[in-house]
Amino acid sequence: MAEPIQFWFDFTSPYSYLMSEKLDDLAAKHGRKVKWKPVLLGAIFKVTGSQPLLNVPLKGEYSARDFLRSARFLGIPYRQPDKFPLAMLAPSRAYYWLHDRDCALARRFAHAVFRGYFVDNRDVADPAVTIELAKAAGANGDELAAALGTQEVKDRLKQECDASIAMGMFGAPYVVIDGEPFWGADRLPQIEKWLETGGF
Amino acid sequence: MAEPIQFWFDFTSPYSYLMSEKLDDLAAKHGRKVKWKPVLLGAIFKVTGSQPLLNVPLKGEYSARDFLRSARFLGIPYRQPDKFPLAMLAPSRAYYWLHDRDCALARRFAHAVFRGYFVDNRDVADPAVTIELAKAAGANGDELAAALGTQEVKDRLKQECDASIAMGMFGAPYVVIDGEPFWGADRLPQIEKWLETGGF
Repeated sequence: MAEPIQFWFDFTSPYSYLMSEKLDDLAAKHGRKVKWKPVLLGAIFKVTGSQPLLNVPLKGEYSARDFLRSARFLGIPYRQPDKFPLAMLAPSRAYYWLHDRDCALARRFAHAVFRGYFVDNRDVADPAVTIELAKAAGANGDELAAALGTQEVKDRLKQECDASIAMGMFGAPYVVIDGEPFWGADRLPQIEKWLETGGF
Repeated sequence: MAEPIQFWFDFTSPYSYLMSEKLDDLAAKHGRKVKWKPVLLGAIFKVTGSQPLLNVPLKGEYSARDFLRSARFLGIPYRQPDKFPLAMLAPSRAYYWLHDRDCALARRFAHAVFRGYFVDNRDVADPAVTIELAKAAGANGDELAAALGTQEVKDRLKQECDASIAMGMFGAPYVVIDGEPFWGADRLPQIEKWLETGGF
């Protein structure tokens, strides 16, 4: 059986959100599973010297327009969050803790974080909101609240960020299919062709 | 009649080359013309603080792979030039001089520069090669050689670079359709939908 497709992302990344709404269905059409891996672009940008998109002169204004247009192009609801970008420590840490216990629950939670941020304009980086969304997805909120403060949970996210850098990630979303990396929601057509043909 | 689509590019940009092989046909399908405008990304990157792609840690290695894969995806021949990137002063200056005299000839010349660089691995930034390609496209080589050294021809390119920055360009290719900007060869599907629908 083929290895799962790896989907590395940051919850604050608009193009990651767009990818999150498309990748699972595309993979399923080709009998493939997807492994979701939230990381923090802030840690990665320290290595690459990159900046958050909206901070880059000229490119920032274009990007704000492109987020909305790309969402319309893909038929995905999108509202630019008022607080943007956010350091997504709490939901990313929560994701791995949830995933180790119930991976289907973790997937529901991850969708709720993305949609809470990019549709409902919520401050999903606030630990109280993270816990509320996890509870709504079926998690034990008290256990999660206790876990979020532990060194083990903090270290787990740090390890995933380190692994993403070691693997070559420099931006999000970053999708790896059988060793082939694809950066950006705009690589969805290439991902589809790759899955159809086994590589081109 | 609709305004021409504006296609801003740098002759050293792989994704500009990919766009150059697709945009005219796509526009023609929708009864639109394209105005080609070579500029120098070096001048633009001074404003944005950007770096040539291959110089960026991690992103550089990915990009080298993505140039080739994107060309295969689009069915366009591509060979990574040995000397890359190049400062495309001579062919860009030549383009505007040719365009003011014969725009069809200038278009043939521009294709020859892109293909000379990205297929035949030639040093198309060398003024002697620029003149050779222009002659093959039908230009008077002696007149062009004399023109390339004039302040007027140098100033013309500088004005086009300044205009591209004033217009908001931060990378290449940069396509503007009725005021709507599209950055990157990967926006071809959005450009197609925009032309089909008149905006979405």
